[in-house]
Amino acid sequence: MGIEDAILIRTSNTLKYCDNKVLMLDRRKYPEEEVWQAYSTYEEVAQAIEDMVIQGAGSIGFAACFGLGLAAYTFNSLPDPDFSHMINRAAERLKSTRPTGEYLIPLVDKMVEVCLGARKDGGDPVEAVVKEVERLMDEDDQITKKCGIYAADLIDDKDGILTHCYPGGALLYMLDQAQKQGKDVKVYCSETRPYLQGARLTAASVSKLGIETTIVTDNMGALLMWQGKIQKLVTACDRITVDGHIANKVGTYQYAICANYHKVPFIVLGYDGPQTFTPDISAVEIEERDPEEVLYCRGVRTGAPGVSGYYPAFDVTPPTLIGAIVTDRGVFSPLAIGNAYKDRFTNGS
Amino acid sequence: MGIEDAILIRTSNTLKYCDNKVLMLDRRKYPEEEVWQAYSTYEEVAQAIEDMVIQGAGSIGFAACFGLGLAAYTFNSLPDPDFSHMINRAAERLKSTRPTGEYLIPLVDKMVEVCLGARKDGGDPVEAVVKEVERLMDEDDQITKKCGIYAADLIDDKDGILTHCYPGGALLYMLDQAQKQGKDVKVYCSETRPYLQGARLTAASVSKLGIETTIVTDNMGALLMWQGKIQKLVTACDRITVDGHIANKVGTYQYAICANYHKVPFIVLGYDGPQTFTPDISAVEIEERDPEEVLYCRGVRTGAPGVSGYYPAFDVTPPTLIGAIVTDRGVFSPLAIGNAYKDRFTNGS
Repeated sequence: MGIEDAILIRTSNTLKYCDNKVLMLDRRKYPEEEVWQAYSTYEEVAQAIEDMVIQGAGSIGFAACFGLGLAAYTFNSLPDPDFSHMINRAAERLKSTRPTGEYLIPLVDKMVEVCLGARKDGGDPVEAVVKEVERLMDEDDQITKKCGIYAADLIDDKDGILTHCYPGGALLYMLDQAQKQGKDVKVYCSETRPYLQGARLTAASVSKLGIETTIVTDNMGALLMWQGKIQKLVTACDRITVDGHIANKVGTYQYAICANYHKVPFIVLGYDGPQTFTPDISAVEIEERDPEEVLYCRGVRTGAPGVSGYYPAFDVTPPTLIGAIVTDRGVFSPLAIGNAYKDRFTNGS
Repeated sequence: MGIEDAILIRTSNTLKYCDNKVLMLDRRKYPEEEVWQAYSTYEEVAQAIEDMVIQGAGSIGFAACFGLGLAAYTFNSLPDPDFSHMINRAAERLKSTRPTGEYLIPLVDKMVEVCLGARKDGGDPVEAVVKEVERLMDEDDQITKKCGIYAADLIDDKDGILTHCYPGGALLYMLDQAQKQGKDVKVYCSETRPYLQGARLTAASVSKLGIETTIVTDNMGALLMWQGKIQKLVTACDRITVDGHIANKVGTYQYAICANYHKVPFIVLGYDGPQTFTPDISAVEIEERDPEEVLYCRGVRTGAPGVSGYYPAFDVTPPTLIGAIVTDRGVFSPLAIGNAYKDRFTNGS
């Protein structure tokens, strides 16, 4: 048992480009089953992203980039202008899959450049894309680890930690580092309806670290705080704005309000920091998914017959409810995160 | 379509004593199926209450009383002292089924008196109990209706109403009355994991009134408020303390905090008001149910293998988060509820 057993810790463990197929560990079936899906076209990859086979802002971005690799393979025999046209078309399709996360669009845009650049220089555009995505996934693992290690300094011995959704590898690196620092912690995973990422992905991963892990339903967070079981709220985020708001899985905002009410600090794992220049939350599109998804749980109908659902997949938490945003550059007040990444957004874009 | 189609509106529609059997509409299967369970012994009734065949503080109390009727039937041929002993034994068992709701214990205690009194007077103790329970259920329906009608005055035209769990008939009478007053409302039912009372019982009942009904997961309440979709939070409660706290289905407290943050009034449907003298919340036992129940949804495993759950079934909301407690006596500030029922608790008990 240990951090390497938590296979979700890095995207490269669950997403591969191999023999011109994109392979994904199906996160809808993990951890009960380790089923890999194989896709041969960019359209199949786009649909897999939409269907939640892969989840998490970073992983979605890398998966889409591998999808672009498949497009390069499919269209490689076309003349230059047609190749370029089809690559851009594939990129638009892949970028349209999930609107809220901030890695997807810049990563795919970057990969279009890599792809067309390699072709122009007489190289193999498929190889160029795949190599670059693999390099970025390795880099991402290092970023994730740094973020987690910085975050560990904010955790105290005997902390009860409430998480929501699957916060990704940074949570696991954070917990691993906290353990190395001799801190004894407990983790409560809120199940995260309708997809149950907390009850499944997070609970399975955290328990692999040998940490006492407890699954609770999404309606228990405030009670746990009232009972004194929670000392830190820790989640990831799919988007960070310059003015210190975050967007994350629906339910995060609700917990952030309850944490504030109970004086429990809210720590946001911000990974690589803001990727896209987002001055404020008005520029963030909150993804609304198929309302039917909230009427089912693992394929079983849960909603009363004939009644509709509503499924906004993300919510927005303001900086006043956030204690710290932690990235690979360090620990930041939400009020300072914009300034900390000024270098990335020169000319205000 | 109309209020009489919402069969859960009154307990007598779903709980009957017939030919020395207790019949219950199985709320674990409703609304998909209308399955009735039949019980012949008080122990079977006690187990059915524990297993959530029937739910809601009032309904549970009446079901337990019918269970006592079965005990009277079973032990009717015993000599007086043995009959009395067994009736008290059955009462203890029935009162031990669910600890948090406040109707159960006083109702069963009252029915022990009715039962032993009838026997002493040479009457039929079974008939005496059943008649009295049926009378109390009718009375309860009138109380429920009054409570709902008072609450309707607090609802405004175009209100979006967030509910949690199944708040019982008072919610339906409230909505029906609001409609009669020409108010157009929408209702959001939060699904209420793990038993999904909101997604099933509440959604099925409210939609029968012809009201626009939407099911959301338990993590969306704060977002709905942020979006401006919610103007009132309305739930029932299982316990009211003299100092204005309420205990209700876990998740209520979380929504109350979020409602307060968004300046959305929280209206508590208090039915008949406090039943048991409960000076403050320290006297309330929060029921902890089998942790396995949070690891399943409608029989399907949702939790990661090998990870534990935690299932506190109720939480406590302080008076500072409550806008009004509505009972059959009217609309009360939570700070005034103790005084309003002083007459019921003479001698401080």
